[in-house]
Amino acid sequence: MSANDAYAELIKRTREVNLIARCAAVLHWDQETNMPKGGGQYRGEQMAYLSGLAHKKSTDPEIGELLSQTENSDLVKDEFSDEAVNIREIRRDYDKSVKVPQKLVEEIARTRTISQQVWVEARQKSDFSLFLPNLEKIIKLDRELADHLGYEKEAYDALLDNYEPGMTCELVSKTFADLRDELVKLVAAITASGKKPNMAIVEQDFDVHRQKIFGQEAAAAIGYNFHDGRLDISTHPFTAGLGPHDTRITTRYNPKHLGQAFFGTMHEGGHAIYDQNLDSKHFGTPRGEFVSLGIHESQSLMWENMVGRSRPFWRHFFPRARQVFPEALAGVAFDDFFFAINNVRPSFIRVEADEVTYNLHIMLRFEIELAFLRGELAPKDIPGAWNDKFKDYLGITPPDDAQGCLQDMHWSSAVIGYFPTYALGNLYGAQFFAKAREDMPDLDEQFAAGDFSELKNWLVKNIHLHGKRYRAEKLVEVVTGRRLSHQPAVNYLKTKYGELYGL
Amino acid sequence: MSANDAYAELIKRTREVNLIARCAAVLHWDQETNMPKGGGQYRGEQMAYLSGLAHKKSTDPEIGELLSQTENSDLVKDEFSDEAVNIREIRRDYDKSVKVPQKLVEEIARTRTISQQVWVEARQKSDFSLFLPNLEKIIKLDRELADHLGYEKEAYDALLDNYEPGMTCELVSKTFADLRDELVKLVAAITASGKKPNMAIVEQDFDVHRQKIFGQEAAAAIGYNFHDGRLDISTHPFTAGLGPHDTRITTRYNPKHLGQAFFGTMHEGGHAIYDQNLDSKHFGTPRGEFVSLGIHESQSLMWENMVGRSRPFWRHFFPRARQVFPEALAGVAFDDFFFAINNVRPSFIRVEADEVTYNLHIMLRFEIELAFLRGELAPKDIPGAWNDKFKDYLGITPPDDAQGCLQDMHWSSAVIGYFPTYALGNLYGAQFFAKAREDMPDLDEQFAAGDFSELKNWLVKNIHLHGKRYRAEKLVEVVTGRRLSHQPAVNYLKTKYGELYGL
Repeated sequence: MSANDAYAELIKRTREVNLIARCAAVLHWDQETNMPKGGGQYRGEQMAYLSGLAHKKSTDPEIGELLSQTENSDLVKDEFSDEAVNIREIRRDYDKSVKVPQKLVEEIARTRTISQQVWVEARQKSDFSLFLPNLEKIIKLDRELADHLGYEKEAYDALLDNYEPGMTCELVSKTFADLRDELVKLVAAITASGKKPNMAIVEQDFDVHRQKIFGQEAAAAIGYNFHDGRLDISTHPFTAGLGPHDTRITTRYNPKHLGQAFFGTMHEGGHAIYDQNLDSKHFGTPRGEFVSLGIHESQSLMWENMVGRSRPFWRHFFPRARQVFPEALAGVAFDDFFFAINNVRPSFIRVEADEVTYNLHIMLRFEIELAFLRGELAPKDIPGAWNDKFKDYLGITPPDDAQGCLQDMHWSSAVIGYFPTYALGNLYGAQFFAKAREDMPDLDEQFAAGDFSELKNWLVKNIHLHGKRYRAEKLVEVVTGRRLSHQPAVNYLKTKYGELYGL
Repeated sequence: MSANDAYAELIKRTREVNLIARCAAVLHWDQETNMPKGGGQYRGEQMAYLSGLAHKKSTDPEIGELLSQTENSDLVKDEFSDEAVNIREIRRDYDKSVKVPQKLVEEIARTRTISQQVWVEARQKSDFSLFLPNLEKIIKLDRELADHLGYEKEAYDALLDNYEPGMTCELVSKTFADLRDELVKLVAAITASGKKPNMAIVEQDFDVHRQKIFGQEAAAAIGYNFHDGRLDISTHPFTAGLGPHDTRITTRYNPKHLGQAFFGTMHEGGHAIYDQNLDSKHFGTPRGEFVSLGIHESQSLMWENMVGRSRPFWRHFFPRARQVFPEALAGVAFDDFFFAINNVRPSFIRVEADEVTYNLHIMLRFEIELAFLRGELAPKDIPGAWNDKFKDYLGITPPDDAQGCLQDMHWSSAVIGYFPTYALGNLYGAQFFAKAREDMPDLDEQFAAGDFSELKNWLVKNIHLHGKRYRAEKLVEVVTGRRLSHQPAVNYLKTKYGELYGL
């Protein structure tokens, strides 16, 4: 078989596996949004069947042979050509899949199912000791997983690479350390300022139906395409890429809070704009897929926070918000509203944190994960380490483990190495956004006029259309001309919140 | 391999094929209710992939071998045991699948796609000559299909058997002939009576949201289980069995008509009650599946018409309807409302027909299908034959072919032999209902008190739980003690409409 024929067959098989995964994605979306209660058990069987089928097809030894036939050919001469990118990424996935023994995969899956149940109970009772034996087992299994996957310096790298391909612990540690010092100072200064917004402005009655209309309008305005998408309700908001022209988002409404659903919709809208603008002719292959979780998060956080919580954005949308919610907002001044949606306050729960304190929540988790994976922190000592760090970074101490180290489901799901992608998303996002501002100096005026198309087009051209051509670290350099740095995020936060809190 | 092991393997494979088909069913339900416009093309690829996968697995020659190993064993000693039923029906499906050459399957699929487009245009322009060449081709292909499937007396039997297993043209012809004479007389008498209900009662403003609440309430009251189901909107109402505890229904709302969505919901609710009460421990095998389209339709028509358009049903629900729609119904007398929802009037469009004239629409189609399949009626002469029969049976002549022989999509979809199942549904339903009344003489009092559980339980016990144990004809005998007859349907219609129209 010629290299070209082998490549064509490789792509055909890759698309087939992807098609099966997208069928599962439809079933999953349905499960989270529509499925009646009774449907759960059989849906589980269907999901297991489809994922088994996809796994079987993607680990077929013939994939390995096809890869070998293409890897020394002219197809990979230019390392960033479509073909070379696909071959590189299919190889990566294939190696990862075949390196891990099926027995370990199954043991992790079994342990995850049990651990999640135990974790739910432990969190309810705020009793870390209940969860400890499971957590110990998970750490052991994830270490084994890292050993099978292989790494150069640090076992953590092997796990991190599952979520942020090519990223290293070394770079994350260095960047986070620089960022941490700046953020701790900024949070302390904000706390010391004594200034507090009037939160009653956003915490009053907001009709859910009108919230939906308002959120849809904003999502459409920033560029989410409803012809190829829709907005639904689910307990945990998410974005579902179901096809080249079918990317759906969900949110949840709090009838007593304007911001939760609105910024949730902006966040998922940001994810979805990325998904909708991947190159559809490469759909179902790595060249048409997102770079990494961190880069995905950079898009959602940029639209949610850097755009969606900005002054110019609300110059346009505040008058509209007043029309939609006259009872709640008619008498409210712009500055008071703007302050209320940008309230910074050290708090215990990550998913409720503001954009200044959020990264500190992540760093703390990263440091603890790294320490227990290295064997430097015994699992039984996690609660103490958590609370000490929390006090250091945010100045407050969690009253119990439910509001401390038991709050996230990640560890109970055997997901270690995932947390850094959230903060990386903020860093990438700020660095992209700073470059976008350089390239388009009048973005603020455009936003104030309700026009977000130039920023969207810039993101599409510079990021979305490239798919997986570049790994995240490389993409940042290609787009911004600089290596990943904490500085743009720090500049962004200091400028915005320095002004708001009069620092 | 022992017969028992072969049977276990056969069941495993049957459930696997069924699981794939249910994945496709979720994708289809999503397509009809939720999918954004952009999603159509890729969804088509997914559906084709899943149906190809299911076809490949269900026609695997090993299925044939497994069947052979079970068919002469003790497993089939009792012909109505669970095992014997499954072996019989899996054999039937397997033989049907392997008898038809792949080439013919593909040609029918291709022709269907083109014909449907042509038919849409022909109907729009009301120009039968546009559709004629495609219809000629479809008739030729469906005759070939019948030849491959095989039959004893009549090619039509081979096609009819695809929708109503074991049913014969001979029995349908005889039963329909008896029914037709009675119905033609009844329709003529109704027309001659000159009595007409005041249709303005049901043709006014009915808030869609309240229609939904009212419809849901009625569906739940007759026994549709919302824990294992849900009600949505789609252009063409349907019932989707997505899992052993996930059966969904759809309807469509007309804000200017109370009946369309309501009786549509009752109809689909009837289908869904059947689906929800199949024996879930046999899910994914014939023993846990519905008997035939005709038997399915007997359940939907019984709940929609025999229960849902009955006087006792509305004794309970009319006061509630007045509460839900006080503006429209406060001043309306019960008898006037009841007459309006039971209006009989010869009309051209089948899907809008009332329960008296409906069967005549079906018979006419059956007679024409049979004639053109036998070669006794040239396709070009269909419009003339249609209009002549229409005049004979219903006393009116379609003004054009769009309202005549071009109205249904069945023939353009190469679906010949399906129509009789609609009228058979009415006959089975009436015969079951007459027997239910014998067994439970106070059904009317129960309905008037809003209690439908005894009828539902009777249907579950006598029909639903048996799955495919008996073929339709046999089931009718087992349940009612008599062979299929037109008489119960005639009695039901004559009694009800004789009283309403004072005949």
